[in-house]
Amino acid sequence: MERRLNWGLIGGGEGSQIGAAHRIAAALDRKFRLVAGALDVDPERGREFAARCGIDAARAYGDWREMLERERVLAPDAGRLDLVTVATPNVTHYAIAKAFLEAGFDVLCEKPLTTTVEDGAALVAAAKARRRVLAVNYGYSGYPLIRQARAMALSGELGRIRVVVAEFAHGFHASAADAGNPRVRWRYDPRQMGASSVLADVGCHALHLACYAIGQEVRSVAADFASCVAGRELEDDAMLALRFSGGAVGRLWASAVAAGQMHGLTLRVFGERGGLRWAQEQPNQLYWAPSGEPTRILERGAEGLSPEAARASRIVVGHVEGMLGAFANVYADLAEALAARRENRRPAPPGPAYPTGAEGAHSVAVVHAAARSAAAGGRWVEV
Amino acid sequence: MERRLNWGLIGGGEGSQIGAAHRIAAALDRKFRLVAGALDVDPERGREFAARCGIDAARAYGDWREMLERERVLAPDAGRLDLVTVATPNVTHYAIAKAFLEAGFDVLCEKPLTTTVEDGAALVAAAKARRRVLAVNYGYSGYPLIRQARAMALSGELGRIRVVVAEFAHGFHASAADAGNPRVRWRYDPRQMGASSVLADVGCHALHLACYAIGQEVRSVAADFASCVAGRELEDDAMLALRFSGGAVGRLWASAVAAGQMHGLTLRVFGERGGLRWAQEQPNQLYWAPSGEPTRILERGAEGLSPEAARASRIVVGHVEGMLGAFANVYADLAEALAARRENRRPAPPGPAYPTGAEGAHSVAVVHAAARSAAAGGRWVEV
Amino acid sequence: MERRLNWGLIGGGEGSQIGAAHRIAAALDRKFRLVAGALDVDPERGREFAARCGIDAARAYGDWREMLERERVLAPDAGRLDLVTVATPNVTHYAIAKAFLEAGFDVLCEKPLTTTVEDGAALVAAAKARRRVLAVNYGYSGYPLIRQARAMALSGELGRIRVVVAEFAHGFHASAADAGNPRVRWRYDPRQMGASSVLADVGCHALHLACYAIGQEVRSVAADFASCVAGRELEDDAMLALRFSGGAVGRLWASAVAAGQMHGLTLRVFGERGGLRWAQEQPNQLYWAPSGEPTRILERGAEGLSPEAARASRIVVGHVEGMLGAFANVYADLAEALAARRENRRPAPPGPAYPTGAEGAHSVAVVHAAARSAAAGGRWVEV
Amino acid sequence: MERRLNWGLIGGGEGSQIGAAHRIAAALDRKFRLVAGALDVDPERGREFAARCGIDAARAYGDWREMLERERVLAPDAGRLDLVTVATPNVTHYAIAKAFLEAGFDVLCEKPLTTTVEDGAALVAAAKARRRVLAVNYGYSGYPLIRQARAMALSGELGRIRVVVAEFAHGFHASAADAGNPRVRWRYDPRQMGASSVLADVGCHALHLACYAIGQEVRSVAADFASCVAGRELEDDAMLALRFSGGAVGRLWASAVAAGQMHGLTLRVFGERGGLRWAQEQPNQLYWAPSGEPTRILERGAEGLSPEAARASRIVVGHVEGMLGAFANVYADLAEALAARRENRRPAPPGPAYPTGAEGAHSVAVVHAAARSAAAGGRWVEV
Repeated sequence: MERRLNWGLIGGGEGSQIGAAHRIAAALDRKFRLVAGALDVDPERGREFAARCGIDAARAYGDWREMLERERVLAPDAGRLDLVTVATPNVTHYAIAKAFLEAGFDVLCEKPLTTTVEDGAALVAAAKARRRVLAVNYGYSGYPLIRQARAMALSGELGRIRVVVAEFAHGFHASAADAGNPRVRWRYDPRQMGASSVLADVGCHALHLACYAIGQEVRSVAADFASCVAGRELEDDAMLALRFSGGAVGRLWASAVAAGQMHGLTLRVFGERGGLRWAQEQPNQLYWAPSGEPTRILERGAEGLSPEAARASRIVVGHVEGMLGAFANVYADLAEALAARRENRRPAPPGPAYPTGAEGAHSVAVVHAAARSAAAGGRWVEV
Repeated sequence: MERRLNWGLIGGGEGSQIGAAHRIAAALDRKFRLVAGALDVDPERGREFAARCGIDAARAYGDWREMLERERVLAPDAGRLDLVTVATPNVTHYAIAKAFLEAGFDVLCEKPLTTTVEDGAALVAAAKARRRVLAVNYGYSGYPLIRQARAMALSGELGRIRVVVAEFAHGFHASAADAGNPRVRWRYDPRQMGASSVLADVGCHALHLACYAIGQEVRSVAADFASCVAGRELEDDAMLALRFSGGAVGRLWASAVAAGQMHGLTLRVFGERGGLRWAQEQPNQLYWAPSGEPTRILERGAEGLSPEAARASRIVVGHVEGMLGAFANVYADLAEALAARRENRRPAPPGPAYPTGAEGAHSVAVVHAAARSAAAGGRWVEV
Repeated sequence: MERRLNWGLIGGGEGSQIGAAHRIAAALDRKFRLVAGALDVDPERGREFAARCGIDAARAYGDWREMLERERVLAPDAGRLDLVTVATPNVTHYAIAKAFLEAGFDVLCEKPLTTTVEDGAALVAAAKARRRVLAVNYGYSGYPLIRQARAMALSGELGRIRVVVAEFAHGFHASAADAGNPRVRWRYDPRQMGASSVLADVGCHALHLACYAIGQEVRSVAADFASCVAGRELEDDAMLALRFSGGAVGRLWASAVAAGQMHGLTLRVFGERGGLRWAQEQPNQLYWAPSGEPTRILERGAEGLSPEAARASRIVVGHVEGMLGAFANVYADLAEALAARRENRRPAPPGPAYPTGAEGAHSVAVVHAAARSAAAGGRWVEV
Repeated sequence: MERRLNWGLIGGGEGSQIGAAHRIAAALDRKFRLVAGALDVDPERGREFAARCGIDAARAYGDWREMLERERVLAPDAGRLDLVTVATPNVTHYAIAKAFLEAGFDVLCEKPLTTTVEDGAALVAAAKARRRVLAVNYGYSGYPLIRQARAMALSGELGRIRVVVAEFAHGFHASAADAGNPRVRWRYDPRQMGASSVLADVGCHALHLACYAIGQEVRSVAADFASCVAGRELEDDAMLALRFSGGAVGRLWASAVAAGQMHGLTLRVFGERGGLRWAQEQPNQLYWAPSGEPTRILERGAEGLSPEAARASRIVVGHVEGMLGAFANVYADLAEALAARRENRRPAPPGPAYPTGAEGAHSVAVVHAAARSAAAGGRWVEV
């Protein structure tokens, strides 16, 4: 049996949605085994929960510093961690990821990678200096048909990309009555969120998908932020105009007050040779309209898709794969990247396409540029 | 039998899509009879086509000036025109509409009402001075479920409106090979279009729907214009951030290079008490999400809709009514408004809601403000 | 101007949905002018309503016999009727249509053509004997994309047809509380409906579409009828297995108790070379899956459709055409057929495809065969 | 940490789609650990693959008989199997499941449970005699919104159930060119499939869902079988009329020649108080139309759903859960049932709802009755 990789988790304790998603996703393909963790800000609760997650008591830690001290000395044949996932509150990402990278660990960090642009750049530099993998969990990039869209854009099948339209607009913070609820309120508090709320929180997923799908970075941005619910200091609705490195034009809308919308993450890409559209709530279909021809419905798992998309599917066409499969693809990509490095070879084609730390740092930079633009009356700001 | 109103048409000659739509729409409910017209820029062709449309030779004119001279002297009992529709090229709207208004005729003008802000205001003033009806054919406002959305917004059922999202994005000008085609090229020529192309051409429909549905005007706008196909001087893709008179925030996207999209006109309205979404390509359903409850699918023609929506339906629930029905509702509204004035009464409730000349002038002003904003690097511009 | 055809209407008085639909549809293309009618079972009400419909008093009749007596003697240059539409209660179709056919009129009859198989055959024979047009208003056959499906099936593009699946299942009679309502109750009374209710009432539309789309007749049928609401003597839910003349297999479901479904008329055709699906509630798209390739979305009005479909569209692609347009296509087909006969030429290609009396008679025969099958425990019955 | 249950797998070797699905599903919630298996008909290949699945060599068997001999003697504290899954070819289900049940193991068997009615009954009896759990993997029953539909039907919220409409119609066997392919051909060979092909193969899923959702069994059936591709002895298209134990009427269509359809599994339930519809290809939405009110879209994971549906969700509303999650729910139900028995308590409410052996045997009986009906010209056959 192929050796399962040793995996450590920081944060994501009991009741954390994202923690549960990571545990399922990492285990889905039997590539990772959860062997160490500091799962909770409360040491006792964290150790107790770690036990229920199957972590040996010896590697169930009260906090990440303790974990780092003890794990850094383990040799590979003593179960040294192959990957550490950071799923703690945003403001702590930088310190934890930096410490583990500098101790020689490979790291997958929840989004946003950091809360400042400088920290993002520093993490990328740290990973580079130590030749470590640094990934950021823009997990929607793991959807097979997002991989298909990316393959079509990068291969030139779409022609030069003209316009990318992305949305992440939900209605879960639309209730004024609920605005004071602590679970909601902190998201609109600049002391905890920095300069942006809904854009930093969910809009960044749409932003990353746009960049990821077309293989371009954002060069400049003009933004409009609005606070629709009384008392909010940060925006709960944002619109961005974008210019990309390859010449594409971008339109992005993020909202938390779009009453009735679920996690309304959608992506449309329009090139010289046709257009694509995809929606996270129906992720097993990609609509592809080659210029001048009828729109085609590309099905996940069908024949004729790109190797990148084919590799990312687990079950046959006509069934539904969902978010956990997408997240699992990020872990599968990381497993392959780690294996390739270990075996001193190139990753098996078509190679991993996990969202990189550099992409995470770029997203942070765009969000900050957008906040500056919005504060400056919508003028264009370079990233 | 109720008297059919005497209707005159200027422009909309053979081969004109919009002319055919007007003729069908005006006749659909047997409220108007086409009795006079100057249908073509070529007098002979116009007269010949008028004959085929059933217009008596005596009232088939070679041009609108001739038509005006002859029609203005007719007494009501000699068949004086009850309504004149102007469906000529945009740059001629002002002169024709002004002349007919000043001669005492009621006028329905194709959109855009005028090509300058000043002309728009002047037409509205002329109509007011003569107490004439001036309407503009934002025909999508005639869809029954748009009337429903408006009724729900104006009645307070949605609560205070927070965000309006509107799109009109098609792909019919996406072909670079076709960009030189004269039928496409003129639309991107500032000498013929003024300061805006796709926004003025189709985005204005989305803009009008947004205003119409929530009963608010635009106070300020920040815009981004892009020309995606080489050689175009005017924008073929535009994005607008908006602030409305009642405090609503707007996001609007217009495009002519959205390959694979048909007439992608959609409207979403989010208020304190819930959200609505509607798409022109599936106009018989309105999705209504009251806060905290499952989304409901409101069907055109179903029981429980507002009187405004009920009045605008011709066939029973479960069938499809389309664009011609929507246009016909504008004519029906005009017929009722004219009848009410003639009979010195108020229009029968819920009263006409045809798109007014003032709305048409406002759209022109917003488009011009957007063009100024885009030219000025996206800064906010007052309307 | 092309002469508008003289049109007479029997039935379809005030408040009748179907009467209003006929009047709009016949007038939509300015091909027919309503000049005579016996619109109501109450002579006075009929004459009064005729006046409001613009019919001269001289040709507004108290009943169809009076109309026949007076209209039969008119010469063509005195305004003789070019077409008579019969939109009276089902049980009267036969006598009226027969009398008008025998008097030399061309007839469009509402569905069902007759209430007995023999009467259907007799009407077809009468039309043939007098070389008159006899059409039946299976109006959904006028949808442009149904014409497209038919063209694809008849041209061989689908290969041999294997399976046709058709539904007309609504929920408008699902309320037990409403079952005693006279407007509902008569539909389940064998004295008024004969041997079948929901199948004869709406299932016949699905049945006709199936035959029409593939150009085959039903050879045998096995049926299951169920009465789901207490007290109903006739079926409110029916399922049919079918075998067609060209070897196709059919599955048909009709229901009046499908709570929550609107006019759920859908059609799916599966051939050796691919499959098609269409739904009346979204009639501007046809889904076409060529074998082994992604499904394509064919849009009404788009380039590349068959001439039959192109001819049946009035407005450009991307807008919605609905039921009135479909009905109007039946009238347009009839106008062309009548013109061709008058001018002693073949109908202009691709020729009319109005639903014929023979098709109407066939539908009646299939419904009766199905009723016999259901009564006989579901055994196969030849048509 | 809660003890993970010891799980054994028979069949489902390398390259088997269903085997992979079981392994992912059983592991998804960390409730089962794969500790023993006879995974392949080829002993060497089976042992080798078992190793790659993490099974100790000592418990990697060459065939199921060897596995039974060795596993039956293990004591609970020596790792005795808590559950054995049978995922071998259909004809072997009976012998394997019987042997393991009689040796005191709890068994989950792939569908169809058996190939004869008698064998199905015998398995159910064997399980009852030994008080063992016998489940059948109608895995679609694990979808959260199917659980919701069942809860609504069983609670009376839908009123008396009138009509159930179920489909499983795909196009993967539509290619005549591919009909001779051994992977397809055996499915239409009566020596391997018995009396039914597409109904037994996939139609049984639709059948089970119909029964499961309304909590009724089938009492009688009338069927039509058709072989649309030349050379097939068994049906590739089937339609069933059904009568259920609680009075509901059923309509079921199964096909393998529905070109362009993916795994077209859909379910509609119509009761006195409203209707439901659900499609496997969009499983995160359930459309609920209460009588006389607009249709509501119920979202998986949303508030207000039944406890049965809430318990079956792993991720928050607005994301997509797919087939693996549904299968995992069957395993979760089994884990709870086993735990409850072990702890001598009732399963935690709302209790497990895994598809039972009795349901599996019932499906077999209905399929056989349908085959008899089809062979007898469609007459009604008691189950």
